[in-house]
Amino acid sequence: MADQTTKRTLGVLLYPDFELLDVFGPVEMFGSLKDQVTVVMVAEKAGPVESFQKTKVLADHGLDDCPKLDLLLVPGGWGTLQQLENERLLSWLRERASEVEILMSVCSGSGILAKAGLLDGRPATTNKQSYDTIIAQGPKVDWVREARWVDDGDIVTSSGVSAGMDMALAVIERLYGADTAGMLANMTEYERQTDPTKDPFAKIWT
Amino acid sequence: MADQTTKRTLGVLLYPDFELLDVFGPVEMFGSLKDQVTVVMVAEKAGPVESFQKTKVLADHGLDDCPKLDLLLVPGGWGTLQQLENERLLSWLRERASEVEILMSVCSGSGILAKAGLLDGRPATTNKQSYDTIIAQGPKVDWVREARWVDDGDIVTSSGVSAGMDMALAVIERLYGADTAGMLANMTEYERQTDPTKDPFAKIWT
Repeated sequence: MADQTTKRTLGVLLYPDFELLDVFGPVEMFGSLKDQVTVVMVAEKAGPVESFQKTKVLADHGLDDCPKLDLLLVPGGWGTLQQLENERLLSWLRERASEVEILMSVCSGSGILAKAGLLDGRPATTNKQSYDTIIAQGPKVDWVREARWVDDGDIVTSSGVSAGMDMALAVIERLYGADTAGMLANMTEYERQTDPTKDPFAKIWT
Repeated sequence: MADQTTKRTLGVLLYPDFELLDVFGPVEMFGSLKDQVTVVMVAEKAGPVESFQKTKVLADHGLDDCPKLDLLLVPGGWGTLQQLENERLLSWLRERASEVEILMSVCSGSGILAKAGLLDGRPATTNKQSYDTIIAQGPKVDWVREARWVDDGDIVTSSGVSAGMDMALAVIERLYGADTAGMLANMTEYERQTDPTKDPFAKIWT
């Protein structure tokens, strides 16, 4: 188990048309660990960012003034497509990926990591509905179709939307122990999936 | 099944220290129905509202300039306690409750509805961890301890945090049909609970 005394900073990337639950499933879990984790929202510029579902969330920092991060989460959503061409963001992600303890993605967010070259030669998963579109972003990635999430140590990628909650609890279990993750699931009345290989949606979206 | 041609407006109440997933679980579902539902965030005043997990979300409207609502969702969270004494909010809720088609709450949000007198003589449920504290807000309410959610027609209350997603999908199924609700669950890769009486957390938190 990792050091439990140092407070970690989790950066969550926001961009136009991000998927709400990709962000707020994991942030519900990490953000409830008040003594262990500080959550900051990061976008190209600080200020409001509109989600695909139209709700606007405030980014605390822009890419240029983002503090040092220990954890970084990249959500997916329809806005992913636009970010695949955002060289400034891809370059920021490459830089931050080399510094953080764990880089996470939810849903099509792994398409952005793949496009940045961060997943080359490594196992990863992604959203199942748009699977073919996303894996095309990383021909050198060892894509795993049937997986709720894939934990490859310092990079953890999850399947679509809700899968981010299970991934977040798995990462929390690794960092802070099984009791902490179990308590969070019970407090949020969430029937978590603890087996990363169990993925009914891989079949549904075949 | 209700009329599918009229676009409904869902108002989501925000207040300081609201619980993130209470809001964004349901908003993920309703907000993805772009052609059927418009989601607006409402708070005492328009502008940023800080959640318990610290993320700031923009309220589109204040109580005074909130448009006509068809659906209204009241989340829970640690901030609930403060709102129980907010007479202005309770009075606004009473007024809006009489106008909307369906009033929903997640988690301790039903404590606010109970305090406003809106649940008197009716079945309702709430968060299981803080069950005793919340039910004390409504001695005339027919509280149901073991329930993922309780559908009482124009008022639907859910259990803690994650239960809001199952409740949202059940309400969507009622309004827009089983195919729509099923498709949303598959798109968000969410293994939904479809039985409102199945509630493992009632026992866990006994």
